[in-house]
Amino acid sequence: MKQVFVKDLKKEMDVIDFFMVKSIAVKTGSTGKPYLDVILGDKTGEINGKKWDVGTSDHLLKEKDMVKIIAHVTEFNSQLQLKIQRIRKAVPESNPEDILDMGDFVKAAPEDPEEMYDYIYGVCESMDDQDYKALCMKVLNENRDKLMYYPAASKNHHAELGGLLYHTKRMLMNGERVCEVYTGLNRDLVSTGVILHDIQKIFEIDADTDGMASGYSFEGQMLGHIVMGVKYVDKLALELGIPSEKRIMLEHMVLSHHYEPEFGSPKKPLFPEAEVLHYLDILDARMYDMEEALKVTEPGGFSDRIWTLDNRRIYKQER
Amino acid sequence: MKQVFVKDLKKEMDVIDFFMVKSIAVKTGSTGKPYLDVILGDKTGEINGKKWDVGTSDHLLKEKDMVKIIAHVTEFNSQLQLKIQRIRKAVPESNPEDILDMGDFVKAAPEDPEEMYDYIYGVCESMDDQDYKALCMKVLNENRDKLMYYPAASKNHHAELGGLLYHTKRMLMNGERVCEVYTGLNRDLVSTGVILHDIQKIFEIDADTDGMASGYSFEGQMLGHIVMGVKYVDKLALELGIPSEKRIMLEHMVLSHHYEPEFGSPKKPLFPEAEVLHYLDILDARMYDMEEALKVTEPGGFSDRIWTLDNRRIYKQER
Amino acid sequence: MKQVFVKDLKKEMDVIDFFMVKSIAVKTGSTGKPYLDVILGDKTGEINGKKWDVGTSDHLLKEKDMVKIIAHVTEFNSQLQLKIQRIRKAVPESNPEDILDMGDFVKAAPEDPEEMYDYIYGVCESMDDQDYKALCMKVLNENRDKLMYYPAASKNHHAELGGLLYHTKRMLMNGERVCEVYTGLNRDLVSTGVILHDIQKIFEIDADTDGMASGYSFEGQMLGHIVMGVKYVDKLALELGIPSEKRIMLEHMVLSHHYEPEFGSPKKPLFPEAEVLHYLDILDARMYDMEEALKVTEPGGFSDRIWTLDNRRIYKQER
Amino acid sequence: MKQVFVKDLKKEMDVIDFFMVKSIAVKTGSTGKPYLDVILGDKTGEINGKKWDVGTSDHLLKEKDMVKIIAHVTEFNSQLQLKIQRIRKAVPESNPEDILDMGDFVKAAPEDPEEMYDYIYGVCESMDDQDYKALCMKVLNENRDKLMYYPAASKNHHAELGGLLYHTKRMLMNGERVCEVYTGLNRDLVSTGVILHDIQKIFEIDADTDGMASGYSFEGQMLGHIVMGVKYVDKLALELGIPSEKRIMLEHMVLSHHYEPEFGSPKKPLFPEAEVLHYLDILDARMYDMEEALKVTEPGGFSDRIWTLDNRRIYKQER
Amino acid sequence: MKQVFVKDLKKEMDVIDFFMVKSIAVKTGSTGKPYLDVILGDKTGEINGKKWDVGTSDHLLKEKDMVKIIAHVTEFNSQLQLKIQRIRKAVPESNPEDILDMGDFVKAAPEDPEEMYDYIYGVCESMDDQDYKALCMKVLNENRDKLMYYPAASKNHHAELGGLLYHTKRMLMNGERVCEVYTGLNRDLVSTGVILHDIQKIFEIDADTDGMASGYSFEGQMLGHIVMGVKYVDKLALELGIPSEKRIMLEHMVLSHHYEPEFGSPKKPLFPEAEVLHYLDILDARMYDMEEALKVTEPGGFSDRIWTLDNRRIYKQER
Amino acid sequence: MKQVFVKDLKKEMDVIDFFMVKSIAVKTGSTGKPYLDVILGDKTGEINGKKWDVGTSDHLLKEKDMVKIIAHVTEFNSQLQLKIQRIRKAVPESNPEDILDMGDFVKAAPEDPEEMYDYIYGVCESMDDQDYKALCMKVLNENRDKLMYYPAASKNHHAELGGLLYHTKRMLMNGERVCEVYTGLNRDLVSTGVILHDIQKIFEIDADTDGMASGYSFEGQMLGHIVMGVKYVDKLALELGIPSEKRIMLEHMVLSHHYEPEFGSPKKPLFPEAEVLHYLDILDARMYDMEEALKVTEPGGFSDRIWTLDNRRIYKQER
Repeated sequence: MKQVFVKDLKKEMDVIDFFMVKSIAVKTGSTGKPYLDVILGDKTGEINGKKWDVGTSDHLLKEKDMVKIIAHVTEFNSQLQLKIQRIRKAVPESNPEDILDMGDFVKAAPEDPEEMYDYIYGVCESMDDQDYKALCMKVLNENRDKLMYYPAASKNHHAELGGLLYHTKRMLMNGERVCEVYTGLNRDLVSTGVILHDIQKIFEIDADTDGMASGYSFEGQMLGHIVMGVKYVDKLALELGIPSEKRIMLEHMVLSHHYEPEFGSPKKPLFPEAEVLHYLDILDARMYDMEEALKVTEPGGFSDRIWTLDNRRIYKQER
Repeated sequence: MKQVFVKDLKKEMDVIDFFMVKSIAVKTGSTGKPYLDVILGDKTGEINGKKWDVGTSDHLLKEKDMVKIIAHVTEFNSQLQLKIQRIRKAVPESNPEDILDMGDFVKAAPEDPEEMYDYIYGVCESMDDQDYKALCMKVLNENRDKLMYYPAASKNHHAELGGLLYHTKRMLMNGERVCEVYTGLNRDLVSTGVILHDIQKIFEIDADTDGMASGYSFEGQMLGHIVMGVKYVDKLALELGIPSEKRIMLEHMVLSHHYEPEFGSPKKPLFPEAEVLHYLDILDARMYDMEEALKVTEPGGFSDRIWTLDNRRIYKQER
Repeated sequence: MKQVFVKDLKKEMDVIDFFMVKSIAVKTGSTGKPYLDVILGDKTGEINGKKWDVGTSDHLLKEKDMVKIIAHVTEFNSQLQLKIQRIRKAVPESNPEDILDMGDFVKAAPEDPEEMYDYIYGVCESMDDQDYKALCMKVLNENRDKLMYYPAASKNHHAELGGLLYHTKRMLMNGERVCEVYTGLNRDLVSTGVILHDIQKIFEIDADTDGMASGYSFEGQMLGHIVMGVKYVDKLALELGIPSEKRIMLEHMVLSHHYEPEFGSPKKPLFPEAEVLHYLDILDARMYDMEEALKVTEPGGFSDRIWTLDNRRIYKQER
Repeated sequence: MKQVFVKDLKKEMDVIDFFMVKSIAVKTGSTGKPYLDVILGDKTGEINGKKWDVGTSDHLLKEKDMVKIIAHVTEFNSQLQLKIQRIRKAVPESNPEDILDMGDFVKAAPEDPEEMYDYIYGVCESMDDQDYKALCMKVLNENRDKLMYYPAASKNHHAELGGLLYHTKRMLMNGERVCEVYTGLNRDLVSTGVILHDIQKIFEIDADTDGMASGYSFEGQMLGHIVMGVKYVDKLALELGIPSEKRIMLEHMVLSHHYEPEFGSPKKPLFPEAEVLHYLDILDARMYDMEEALKVTEPGGFSDRIWTLDNRRIYKQER
Repeated sequence: MKQVFVKDLKKEMDVIDFFMVKSIAVKTGSTGKPYLDVILGDKTGEINGKKWDVGTSDHLLKEKDMVKIIAHVTEFNSQLQLKIQRIRKAVPESNPEDILDMGDFVKAAPEDPEEMYDYIYGVCESMDDQDYKALCMKVLNENRDKLMYYPAASKNHHAELGGLLYHTKRMLMNGERVCEVYTGLNRDLVSTGVILHDIQKIFEIDADTDGMASGYSFEGQMLGHIVMGVKYVDKLALELGIPSEKRIMLEHMVLSHHYEPEFGSPKKPLFPEAEVLHYLDILDARMYDMEEALKVTEPGGFSDRIWTLDNRRIYKQER
Repeated sequence: MKQVFVKDLKKEMDVIDFFMVKSIAVKTGSTGKPYLDVILGDKTGEINGKKWDVGTSDHLLKEKDMVKIIAHVTEFNSQLQLKIQRIRKAVPESNPEDILDMGDFVKAAPEDPEEMYDYIYGVCESMDDQDYKALCMKVLNENRDKLMYYPAASKNHHAELGGLLYHTKRMLMNGERVCEVYTGLNRDLVSTGVILHDIQKIFEIDADTDGMASGYSFEGQMLGHIVMGVKYVDKLALELGIPSEKRIMLEHMVLSHHYEPEFGSPKKPLFPEAEVLHYLDILDARMYDMEEALKVTEPGGFSDRIWTLDNRRIYKQER
């Protein structure tokens, strides 16, 4: 069972514990001697390690292997680094202590995917508008498997297992509340926009079942999830016989939700529900990034510069 | 009592009713003959009128007078225009039918100022943080008179009687709901930011008790309500002995709430509550502008281009 | 038969000839008297006219009527204007001289639509790639009727009868030549991109059979011809069983042909044929606008400022 | 006594001399052996040094210590580097040769702080306007201690001991001359603006008495020296009973002196003295940066790219 | 002799005085009657006038005629306007009172062209550097005639008789003072840059001997005064045998003096004297525009929006 | 004779072959031992090499030497690297196998310089316009030597031996074809613009006879090839007595060919031939960069990010 996490490592600590191999290579040092260069991780972060004495079995290790190490924490260029004495692959079949909880090794949204999915499904079931309801149900049903693990990004906000569900759920929660204040809004239209807006990320991004993205699909690079989303809504809406005004309004919501052309939206929102969708989206992304930044910041201090927040350094109140 | 409103005027109608004089001048026509050129209004809008035969008493009329007219609605350059036969000042003292409800003549927020003020006051009273509470109470108490009628802008969104209260109240309502979704947020800090963010508009803008702005104050032009607001919070916080961390955070919220330098904020939000404040502000402004645009748009059609919405034409669903 | 054209009118000329009514209204002058305000046009341009004495039959005239006028050319605000004495609707049924050649009244591309269509069709027939060929043939066949008259814009370049065909044809001609110089290019792919790139303008723009646009369709405003074009290619390619690589590349060509996000392309061209498509498009638009500007410019002089050319004034060589 | 300066070091020289420790750390080499990694400096620059054999006493050295070294100058990645044989802390108490002139080790403005301060003070004393005079005197008196050493920046122009005084003095000198040419300017107002414009840098930046900045204060990060300056002028002006027109104009000068929103000024200068202040400021910064760049450039050659000068390479005339 | 100036006209005044015709036309009123539409001016400004009863001799008046009028000042669209009863051409040959001082009618720099020229000439004579001296002398000598009257712009700053000399002189004065503060600058190089920087405006702009620009020359439109200036310096420097380093530095100063590419400078200043030249230029332009704006502004008030000052409204201190 | 090229090297290969030294230095390793650090290249690319054991003769090697090496290919930081056992200078005088074809070592345009020159010369000879013809002949004749090897850039597109000729030739070929489609264009004017547009690159860039640029000339840095080109055309045109309209149009074509101020053109093209010149230029650059990128990309894959193509990754069709 795992006991020490990356975020808790301190200089000069000795470590004997399990990690996941994120990348690994045998390299040649400046004196011509080979060494093992590895990045190890768990759900809290990643750390670089070096093993100066490469053994035969070390050559067999590969990405995503679970390994046990004996190491010492040093510092190099003001970054922590592991000086590894021993490293071996975990063998859960024969070694009881090697039976690991994968949840310790994979960054994941803080809520259970099943429950998030059910919450979203519940919102659909409660819709009054039968067109929007049918469309959302179909989308949720036919993409259920991938939604269970897909991240909402390859890096940046919600790049984690179940990230897309988490992003969608919090936007839905906030969307329902906005409709209580701005009572002229069509609640079902807002919710449908939320459910559809990023759905094609599951075909734009290539990700494995741990929610880790490895890159972009061919269509993702050539068209992007926004235009793919418009095509997808078009196809489903025609199949379901949804009236053209509603169909085009939904396609417009997907198309305009990034708001600015330079962020991928060739049209700006042209009705209130489309406008609201954009602000639900951006507010959720910003809250996520700030929460993440403040998790590792001391009270009364500033975080590192956060690239996705225009390089701002976020402040954590001392109280 | 007023019966016909500007928004209901149609070409070729005859009108006998009361209006407020928005501007008035005797001008010389292209043939050298004088005529009366007047803009008349009520709570629903404004219209230009011409009287081709200027009488002696016409010279005495002035801005903000209540007048009764006999006129015919014509069209000039595809705009409606009144051809006025007679115009006289209302004399409520001697003429019972001239006793008017001022509410018919002044564009106002859709809720009662007293009630909006009480709602906001109630939010303050319920605050747990005694520093924020004391500060907000002081702000509300010492600016109560002006808040009862001040608009939130000289033109654009919330340029109406009670507009600043209305803007503040809806942001508070939405702010409380956002804190239900993003539970790490400090609700009292968000509410305090909302109450303070535009408070100095009452000294930046020159407005009369009908909520109509006539321009900007000297300090308003030289410094603007954002920097004036920072100074105001500084002064109050020092008087009330508020700890410096809280004081500076509140000043930062006021300073950063327009988000982008080119809109007047030299700093971007550096903590989540400041970030949220910006989005509450902009969302309320956008919802207001879209609601206004759609009020005068036919279902299934697009509004005129709205300057404050980047010249977008807003669509009204046909349903 | 028409004898005098708008571009030939000079101050103080007397005019007795036929024009098309572009817009018409009875207005009230500053002295309260009604007058007829009309814009008249032919294939060479438009001019404003006033008739100070409105007759009964004048009220019956409407947009797109052909009229005969007796008028004098005056100048107002340094623009020519017609002072109309008489105006009457043309009655070709009963009046031989009123039998008009519509070609004199409608701005049209300089080549015959049938011939341009055949040229484009011929390019398709000569394609080696059966997928591209099938797709282009289908597009041409199913849109033949509209292509015969559609403009390529509601205003700006190629806003004329047959403008879309003319734009497409000249791009095809130039595209074939570019492939002679840059021999690595796939000629059929370039040609297919040219034929598809603006095809959805026939559904984005509302135009009549004279090639005059009256506005944009609902889907045109909400999505735009670029995204509509991607959806259209997607639908056709799936019907025709075109391999997905080719399908996505063609969709990408349509999506990226405006090059910059602020001009509507969320993706920049990612392969040489897509890059070439953009330059064929922009060069043809620029050549068209410059040719139009120079038509009405004296040798050795500069044109007026041309809005579509960044307000440049174009020079015509004296030679 | 120090004899060799950083700017004079050449490859393959042997060095026995004193330097100040700018940063120091014991690091682990690629073979696992510890070594000492140090940055040494004096008033002319900084250089990296390595000591491959770490002694016990080496662990006791820390930032800002004065040390004596025996070393050889080598080159690494086309940068000079010291290969240190011996290093020891200076002990002026017991070792006469270790008594050092701190001026050799700290980058400082080229004039004496006392004299610069007196010059500025003299300008204040000669003011005719009693309001501006009282304000400036108070500012100079209550900030005298910090002004004696504060830099004008944490890096970039005038980041040196006494830099803020030097920047202020040269701007004052130039300001007086500009008023000779543009005779309508109010000389006292210009001078007051110069003295106030950057004064809050002494609270925005954290610096030690050697004029070296270590970062920004909490208020500095949240509000910045411009807004802090406005608040400071406001407070002082109210204390001194300065008329509101003058007070607001001075606050506006501080607020607008960076000219562009993206550089921190939400308002542009609205009167000539505010306009002049901006140009005095930027010209002094540019002259400083160019002078610094040319100090280390050969005649007839170009400097390195200077980041604060938009990455320009500055040319030094050969003559 | 002229007694009343345009800037002193007030509503309802009666005027009998001389003005210069700036433009004139016989137009047709909305009732079909001809009237005379004229713009009259003097050195303080311009005003529109109408004469409703056109006489035969009125047709003979033309631009730049000096006329005497009898008129009444009215207001139209909140602008003053002259209602002209009589207008006649001045006949100085036969009418003693018609002998006018042209200086009353032409906007001119506030100093005598001869004296400004001599000042500039004196600066050249005092140069130590014989190359720069020879070059400047040649430039002044061969362009003396045009310099006596040329404006520095067709509109905007220094668009007045002698404007180019005035702009050059004040920049020279300020340049000499800047060299007193920044003592490393080469004074002769700065002065030479000032004298050359705008010299080709006399070939870029078409202007008459009253300093009024009528447009741009062919070469001015195609190349602009900056590039024309580079060519001119090149030609002269080769003729005079000036060393290439100096020649290229001077060409660079001319090329870079607008600083930003979008204002016409493809290169930014690459040495201190070129940098200074830019700031001398822009400061003089800004001071000129602000002085002009404040001339017609009441103390304690704001000017109209000034286009050349980014639409700022400039404040005039009340004192 | 060379057998293995840089682009063909693979990890763990042994190499015995000739390369050109691109840069060389003896450096000190982290353990204090010297080693040889060298960049070796041929016409297909460059690779870094290390020799850990520095011999006496190694010190004599210098840039541009031809060397023979015995080495092993390793990988460092995911880049290939040579571990060199032996290195010696080629001695063609005494060693037959050391007689090398320089074409194997220098990146060059794919066509013979003589043939490209002759093609361009032929275009000139065929011109009808005697002015353009004379000008182009003179330019070609007097710059023939440099044109034989000059690159068109110091890096980026056409940075190769004969690159300027290749760029010019392909633009001429495409220009002639564009004139077939847009028949109003003056073919001789287009061709002359192409020949002149970049000609001063041979004085802006410092390059050796292998077409390798080492930097920029003094005039190149101060003025740039565009402004230098304008001066050059001016000088030649005056010598040849070319009419001023033609001269200024050609200077304008050179000046405007980068189109945007931020890319060095202070004027945008003002006639069709100048407009076409820009598009010929940019299309040729883009085609070159894409062709280069795709040479080293697998079918069905994306290239690395290409800096000159806005960091796009270019796709190579699988087919």
